[in-house]
Amino acid sequence: MTANNSFVHENLISKRASKRSNARTSSAATEDAPAGFEPHPKPLALHRGMPNAGFFPIDSIDVNLVEYPFQKSLSIPITNASVESFFPDEKSVSRTNTVTIKKVDDPEYVDISTALQYGSVAGIPQLLQFTQEFINRVHKPAFEDWDTVITSGAGDGLIKAANLLLDAGDVILVEEFTFTPFLENIEDVGGIPVPIKLNLDKDSGKELGLDVEYLSDLLANWETEKPGLPFPKALYVIPSGQNPIGTTQSIETRKKVYKLAEKYDFAIIEDDVYGYLTLRPFQKPASIFKLNDFLEVDDFIANHITPSYLTIDKSGRVIRIETFSKLFAPGLRLGFIVAHKRVTTVIKNYASDVTRSASGTSQLIVQNVIAKKFGGVDGWLQWILKLRITYSHRKDLLLNQIFESAAYKKGFLEVIDPTAGMFVSVFIKLAKGVDAQAKLKLLNYKFKNFGVGVIPGITRTVDKKFSEDRSNFYRLTFAPAEDDNEITEAGQRFVEAVEDFFEKGLEY
Amino acid sequence: MTANNSFVHENLISKRASKRSNARTSSAATEDAPAGFEPHPKPLALHRGMPNAGFFPIDSIDVNLVEYPFQKSLSIPITNASVESFFPDEKSVSRTNTVTIKKVDDPEYVDISTALQYGSVAGIPQLLQFTQEFINRVHKPAFEDWDTVITSGAGDGLIKAANLLLDAGDVILVEEFTFTPFLENIEDVGGIPVPIKLNLDKDSGKELGLDVEYLSDLLANWETEKPGLPFPKALYVIPSGQNPIGTTQSIETRKKVYKLAEKYDFAIIEDDVYGYLTLRPFQKPASIFKLNDFLEVDDFIANHITPSYLTIDKSGRVIRIETFSKLFAPGLRLGFIVAHKRVTTVIKNYASDVTRSASGTSQLIVQNVIAKKFGGVDGWLQWILKLRITYSHRKDLLLNQIFESAAYKKGFLEVIDPTAGMFVSVFIKLAKGVDAQAKLKLLNYKFKNFGVGVIPGITRTVDKKFSEDRSNFYRLTFAPAEDDNEITEAGQRFVEAVEDFFEKGLEY
Repeated sequence: MTANNSFVHENLISKRASKRSNARTSSAATEDAPAGFEPHPKPLALHRGMPNAGFFPIDSIDVNLVEYPFQKSLSIPITNASVESFFPDEKSVSRTNTVTIKKVDDPEYVDISTALQYGSVAGIPQLLQFTQEFINRVHKPAFEDWDTVITSGAGDGLIKAANLLLDAGDVILVEEFTFTPFLENIEDVGGIPVPIKLNLDKDSGKELGLDVEYLSDLLANWETEKPGLPFPKALYVIPSGQNPIGTTQSIETRKKVYKLAEKYDFAIIEDDVYGYLTLRPFQKPASIFKLNDFLEVDDFIANHITPSYLTIDKSGRVIRIETFSKLFAPGLRLGFIVAHKRVTTVIKNYASDVTRSASGTSQLIVQNVIAKKFGGVDGWLQWILKLRITYSHRKDLLLNQIFESAAYKKGFLEVIDPTAGMFVSVFIKLAKGVDAQAKLKLLNYKFKNFGVGVIPGITRTVDKKFSEDRSNFYRLTFAPAEDDNEITEAGQRFVEAVEDFFEKGLEY
Repeated sequence: MTANNSFVHENLISKRASKRSNARTSSAATEDAPAGFEPHPKPLALHRGMPNAGFFPIDSIDVNLVEYPFQKSLSIPITNASVESFFPDEKSVSRTNTVTIKKVDDPEYVDISTALQYGSVAGIPQLLQFTQEFINRVHKPAFEDWDTVITSGAGDGLIKAANLLLDAGDVILVEEFTFTPFLENIEDVGGIPVPIKLNLDKDSGKELGLDVEYLSDLLANWETEKPGLPFPKALYVIPSGQNPIGTTQSIETRKKVYKLAEKYDFAIIEDDVYGYLTLRPFQKPASIFKLNDFLEVDDFIANHITPSYLTIDKSGRVIRIETFSKLFAPGLRLGFIVAHKRVTTVIKNYASDVTRSASGTSQLIVQNVIAKKFGGVDGWLQWILKLRITYSHRKDLLLNQIFESAAYKKGFLEVIDPTAGMFVSVFIKLAKGVDAQAKLKLLNYKFKNFGVGVIPGITRTVDKKFSEDRSNFYRLTFAPAEDDNEITEAGQRFVEAVEDFFEKGLEY
């Protein structure tokens, strides 16, 4: 197999795309008009089966916004610093900010009668344009003919990517610990997921996360390693704030993985729902108030967000999945895909046949709030920077609780300080020879007894058997807690449960 | 084949459901807790990967409503009657009505932090309850164990129904003229649509629409009529305001069709997106102002809405598809399915794996507006009655334009006065022996030249060949026009194009 720089044109659609996807490319029949035919300059419509906007009961919508996360309930348990010291550039943090969405002639606004009407499966034009400006600013693809298409959230984006690439019996590479709902999407189209080992050993001296050597060896020896399985069509990867591990691939790692994709000619599905939520390295929570924690947007882009696989993709083999769920609100069910135009065209055909368009209500809220309140791409990034500080603070609260614990000091626990996203993976250090999964099953009950919900690593595997030796961890998240106290209390319950378990000789 | 009154329990899920659907039924593994285990009474969550509502930029949403369709732009070209005479029970038609959606403890409201959060694939509980109360009031099913599930519009509902029932090679019966996007959903799962003849002959003395005798004969002689094709698993039908014909099946017809479904053991997918939009029989548009046109809700339900197939369904074989698109707004992408609980469970599994939940933003708007502005089920029906009057008026404007035309008076046209929905089918009366489809292709250009968009019947067929003889019609809709003048102008262009075409000897 050799490198192929015209991947998309030669392969992704015509060869790599699923038969299902290729079957969808519709051909519009053209007919010869009779001699002398001229179309009317201003035709009237008796054909489109859609209600006039006058039939809708809604006249307008006012969206009332906050200036920063937790504006109404922020609790700072350690100092009494005012919210103003968090956000020194805000004149008045209590001011109400309302974006009114109505019938209006303003090309930047999504007009309410447009958003409540049947919409394009590609998405509302203004929001599409925003996603393109945003990608252009933060993750400019290395290939020219890229495009975006709106989805009903990252879940919908992943379904579309699976549907685009996989027919029954096709193989897709997946990080051994992953966002497991995607495995159901793979199964739904009959695909076969093959796990790729993650390096979780801090003492290895190698980058944590996807094990590039393992991947390289597997691909080089595919026929002997996976006899009878077809060569993989794609790699599914969560490169930043990996779920459930919390690691972020360096750009060097991405380049190595991409080189393998070129060499072995497979597509990369980049599920990057956490990449903008970069997190500071751990610092004691009290230090949150230093003003230099607030990054400038240019610095944020240049030095904190790891560039997407798109930015090194010369042949259009990357399909990037984004979402507004983590940055705006999950209930919107809104996200987008960035990929080569020929890929987005096939995805639009799929949307046209199966998933239809995303909610117009959600699109109008996101687009109008970003355009009119945040002020476009840079304002949107400033909002994300506010989230970043709040999430970093929460992460540090949880880590601090662990680092200060007896369980940690006694060596029962090891932690990966996440560089992005919402998850901390905490490893239970069991001696060699101990039946780890049997013991962790008991520990699960200990957590239930101590009153803390956690995700056992083994439940996030592609193949339990394959990953058993590396499944001695729990995924903890600092995202859903109501306030700081809940995080510290939950963290406390976690470490106490672990300590109790070890003190009782790994018995319940 | 014999009647089977335990269709759902014995067949729909275990036998009739697609292999794909059956594969999705998930079994939760249960494990034995260790001795002495007790769960904590108030556990804290470090497991759910979802942001706290405090991370959302939205504090509250005000939805500003109108009292009746076209409140701001209603034009009455014939008389100068005020809008108050339309809606005599409204005290002040210009009053602003705002429903505020915020964080609030009120079981009827959808709280904004709930709606913007990840939601249940079944739908937000309050909206689910409304759909159940609504169905109970208007179309109470004849079987006990029914349930509803929220969808992202009727399109999503139809995809789910196709996915539920059909594997590759399975047959589904479809009215020969139909909502053609559903054919793509059938194709997507590999199903085979078989057209059922519609009676479009006004002189036949038989009910217009689905030809029950044809259906009965076809089923009785399936093996000889359709050699090699498996027996149909389902019938897809648009029983009210049929798209594109405009007819509504009487309850007697529905009973006959249902009896065939029992006899031959197939499911019925009832796509009823127009059933509430009943239309008065034609009357000259001027007469719109008679106050007795405004029905009481009880009268509306008892005498105007034709009861759903659900109301005669004793064995749970009907899957009813509803939408808020035609009654509220299409951009919401919101609807629901009514079916047996075992069916809705399988549909929830599908949503969980593939389509995810509907937009929370759309659900919060619909539920809160219906609960707080319309006042629940009966208020919602009152809103629909306002739509009914407006649509009836529009329909009559279009029909009047046709009835008064030279083309109609000269016998070039025949019209079906629709009893529900948004569509008028207008037949072009061509002499026997004329190559109808060749002539209609020319007429299509005539319409483009006169400046009126219409849908040729032939483009809405399951099988062009099968329906060629009955495809001499156009589907016209009075729904999208901006105002009354646009409808009359568009209608005028339509009849003038037809007249011109006939006057020129059926040439362009």
